[in-house]
Amino acid sequence: MTRLYNFCAGPAALPEAVLRRAQQDLPDWQGRGLSVMEMSHRSDDFVAIAEQAERDLRQLMGIPENYKVLFMQGGASSQFAMVPLNLGGRTGSANYVYTGIWGKKALAEGQRYLPAHIAASSEGNGLTRVPSQSEIQLSDDALYLHYTSNETIGGLQFHAVPQSPVPLVCDMSSDILSAPLDVSRFGIIYAGAQKNIGPAGLTLVIIRDDLLDQAKPETPTMMNYRVCADNQSMYNTPPTFAWYLAGLVFDWLKNEIGGLEQMAIINQRKASKLYRAIDTNAFYSNPIDPEHRSLMNVPFRLADDRLDKDFLKESEAAGLLNLAGHRSVGGMRASLYNAVPEAAVDALVDFMQDFATRRG
Amino acid sequence: MTRLYNFCAGPAALPEAVLRRAQQDLPDWQGRGLSVMEMSHRSDDFVAIAEQAERDLRQLMGIPENYKVLFMQGGASSQFAMVPLNLGGRTGSANYVYTGIWGKKALAEGQRYLPAHIAASSEGNGLTRVPSQSEIQLSDDALYLHYTSNETIGGLQFHAVPQSPVPLVCDMSSDILSAPLDVSRFGIIYAGAQKNIGPAGLTLVIIRDDLLDQAKPETPTMMNYRVCADNQSMYNTPPTFAWYLAGLVFDWLKNEIGGLEQMAIINQRKASKLYRAIDTNAFYSNPIDPEHRSLMNVPFRLADDRLDKDFLKESEAAGLLNLAGHRSVGGMRASLYNAVPEAAVDALVDFMQDFATRRG
Repeated sequence: MTRLYNFCAGPAALPEAVLRRAQQDLPDWQGRGLSVMEMSHRSDDFVAIAEQAERDLRQLMGIPENYKVLFMQGGASSQFAMVPLNLGGRTGSANYVYTGIWGKKALAEGQRYLPAHIAASSEGNGLTRVPSQSEIQLSDDALYLHYTSNETIGGLQFHAVPQSPVPLVCDMSSDILSAPLDVSRFGIIYAGAQKNIGPAGLTLVIIRDDLLDQAKPETPTMMNYRVCADNQSMYNTPPTFAWYLAGLVFDWLKNEIGGLEQMAIINQRKASKLYRAIDTNAFYSNPIDPEHRSLMNVPFRLADDRLDKDFLKESEAAGLLNLAGHRSVGGMRASLYNAVPEAAVDALVDFMQDFATRRG
Repeated sequence: MTRLYNFCAGPAALPEAVLRRAQQDLPDWQGRGLSVMEMSHRSDDFVAIAEQAERDLRQLMGIPENYKVLFMQGGASSQFAMVPLNLGGRTGSANYVYTGIWGKKALAEGQRYLPAHIAASSEGNGLTRVPSQSEIQLSDDALYLHYTSNETIGGLQFHAVPQSPVPLVCDMSSDILSAPLDVSRFGIIYAGAQKNIGPAGLTLVIIRDDLLDQAKPETPTMMNYRVCADNQSMYNTPPTFAWYLAGLVFDWLKNEIGGLEQMAIINQRKASKLYRAIDTNAFYSNPIDPEHRSLMNVPFRLADDRLDKDFLKESEAAGLLNLAGHRSVGGMRASLYNAVPEAAVDALVDFMQDFATRRG
């Protein structure tokens, strides 16, 4: 058994310690004679697992008391509909910041339920910078302002939280838990689990209490935040095993990493090493303005794209997995989520230098 | 490590062989250096896993070519909205057969999107029989007829598929794969995974092709069957690990059990043993008409309900887990899904006889 280095953009690497613990517990959780997957979600054991996960998350992120944490399903793509459905019960428009493919998808779905307004866009700069505060222009009737804190495909990230007089809604799927955050600046934070939280099939929603009661009447019951909150995310059977694994990840962040400040230091160091390797070798390039580069997803190109296939083949043979760029843009991409160890980045940087020397 | 007998109604027991295989593969699937959870859903390896699961399911159930198999999220409760949203694009009403709590919930959500008509109800007989064919009266403008093939709480099951001139929609969450089925009789079959398919967080939808294009315009993209079908259930990141585990369950059914005919024989034998134990001992009772009793969920009562707590405590001490009835009805319930071995039923029957002798 050998674990290789996995730079996949998602579903992404999980901490090895988490997988080991899950493996050990799999057929018999703590001597109870059954797997976590086989427990009633309403059993004392599972409720304790679920509550511990929420407590750990609240502590890690410093989530204020007046916010609910929801464990939902359907990924960020379902949130693209849930946000306008849940906040669209009053008259007004939905405001979106567009910085890449995911923000565009959120906008497209939002437009199906509300009049939508593009409050700021990075299209003019070729998606290489996120808008500055002064570039964000809300409509007069804005119900909320939505943005994507990190664009996984473009490799563009907000390093400061925008100011907003209306509830700020953030798709934080790809950089949640990567650094400390002031949750009180947000109305809603949502995130698909499969990057920094756990396995695919779980979606986290952190929502300020006053936003729970503004749903449009046609909102499906299972998409209604109020229903989910009032039932402790168990209106129906939740994805119990994914919830448990998320709990193991929160525990790992808390007790093995030492919290989000420590995590941020490690993430900063990992990304710096890789960007330095790109910037100091003419064979590699990344188009994003250095101030707006993503610490989570680092897209890069080779000077000669005819070598892309060889790069991917040789890197895989060297135990560096999933470095292909997104199918819509090509090139390379290394995702450096929390669970990707610094040693993986060191190995990648060594490989890149070697490859450029041999083939560049 | 001891595996105990688990009679939970859901999330329910999984085959031990499936858990062992998942455990072995957990940190390193087939020498690839990573877990199935950490693979891109678009990777060759995961696509092969996903396609194999669908092939095995199609073979097991004999699913005709003109049906799509969708791997979705959100459980049956999400389908309660998806069915009227996806079939409600034309004028007409939704017809429901009411035989218990789950059918009632489906009806309540359906009414939010379409005029609804109760085509038949078991309320008159105290939910102890399912309606006969002649009792089912469709409305003139029926778009579809919905029923729940097995009521997990009441313990009431259809043992024949109703005839319907309009598309038949079935919530088969708790008895799918328990016996052979003529899929061509149905318009849509859906099932939450956590009883006979795999872990919670995956929902299976089997839908006839002509029903893919009748959605109401407000249907959320992620709830649209056509979108899901056109994207091979990967419009966004699917619950990959749950899908993989479902594939292991299908493989187990095919290769270890020998298919659904064999499974049905075993299930029939398990249920017969338990109902016989109930019917031949005055200390136990089950209120359902014998012809309509569920083979999957067997609710029963003790002659003296002051002994319920002792029964539960002692059965748990004997390694028989999760025998409490649903919180809405009390009493006892033993769920005998596919993965519950016959030896579990034998042990339960022995315990029941012993308990009745000692305490009855």
